[in-house]
Amino acid sequence: MDIAILGGTGDIGEGLALRIARDTDHNVLIGSREEDRAGTAADSYRQQLRDRGADVDIVGMTNREATKRGSLVILAVPPWHIADTVESTKAGLDLNTVLISPAVGMRREEDGFNYAPPENGSVAQLVADVAPESVPVVGAFHNLAAGALRDLDRTLGMDVIVVGDNRMAKRQVVALVESLEGLRPLNGGGLTNSSSVEAITPLLLNLSSQNEGMHDLGVSFL
Amino acid sequence: MDIAILGGTGDIGEGLALRIARDTDHNVLIGSREEDRAGTAADSYRQQLRDRGADVDIVGMTNREATKRGSLVILAVPPWHIADTVESTKAGLDLNTVLISPAVGMRREEDGFNYAPPENGSVAQLVADVAPESVPVVGAFHNLAAGALRDLDRTLGMDVIVVGDNRMAKRQVVALVESLEGLRPLNGGGLTNSSSVEAITPLLLNLSSQNEGMHDLGVSFL
Repeated sequence: MDIAILGGTGDIGEGLALRIARDTDHNVLIGSREEDRAGTAADSYRQQLRDRGADVDIVGMTNREATKRGSLVILAVPPWHIADTVESTKAGLDLNTVLISPAVGMRREEDGFNYAPPENGSVAQLVADVAPESVPVVGAFHNLAAGALRDLDRTLGMDVIVVGDNRMAKRQVVALVESLEGLRPLNGGGLTNSSSVEAITPLLLNLSSQNEGMHDLGVSFL
Repeated sequence: MDIAILGGTGDIGEGLALRIARDTDHNVLIGSREEDRAGTAADSYRQQLRDRGADVDIVGMTNREATKRGSLVILAVPPWHIADTVESTKAGLDLNTVLISPAVGMRREEDGFNYAPPENGSVAQLVADVAPESVPVVGAFHNLAAGALRDLDRTLGMDVIVVGDNRMAKRQVVALVESLEGLRPLNGGGLTNSSSVEAITPLLLNLSSQNEGMHDLGVSFL
């Protein structure tokens, strides 16, 4: 399967690209607004994995091209770029595309990070509101730290809550999560639950800054 | 130390009472609005632990009396009883009392449980607003399921996020959490962060109902 990571040059994009390419047989398409940057990032990710003895397929292209080719399209862009990214790539979406929303709205304030969802209620809901109605949106990968994902020596042991209203689309994302080492997919219910999942991310950042020895945290339910 | 559990006849109260009595040398004071019910509950908890070979000190009394005697006072009452419980026990609070708030506001709706904090922002903040200003309030034990606490055979391996603005008070609560088997205290920062911790509880309930084999969930950060 072709998995597009829009904003794939960013740190969460890098972490997801490296782990998906290492742990699965999927083709990873790195998307960026600028094709050059996407190509450079893809080269670097491929090299990192080659240095570890893995010969994988990661290619760079524009967000638009990646969306057209991808069956799963991960929106690894900051929340304030979500709307224009979906708008500008809309033409490449079809009934068989699943949009995956990992982004979280938060603000750094004096007392730490605070959850700051968009007016739509959650970033995943924003995606659903901007995307064509026929394209299913699934929230996932919200609570993973880029630093942990990119550190390929780190055993994750973390949970990924998957939310969405389209059962088939969720199943595809659950299968993707299951194929990644150290990640366990959990069913988080419908898309309206996305805000409660997104809200965990600022808490993770606050716990990291308040507790010595804790970095790049994830979460596990038990 | 004397640890009062107001609403100690409820299910969270029972779980905390059993674990504190089993794992520490503290005296556990079960508080209830009705002295009789408190006494009956205390007898039953003592018996449960005696059956497991532990001879412990658990006594029942009114919430008012428990508050007067307790150094740590855990408000294990439903959120809608928090204000009147604090009001009616106020006289027993002094500079050396620490009020601990484990309660969470939520609503069961069609799509599952939703976080529903009081107007004050969080239950812990509500406690702080109602209690005398000199009495420190610490949020803790929000994300523990009664079923897990009461099942003394269950190894918890869960985290307890501790929030509050009074450093000394927080330290006492951290020490209490540390003394309980399978629980790890984490510093969650100031009281304003309490809502982000309280908000995890409805998510835990939703994950339990959506995922087979998951019951009485807690959370761990790693």
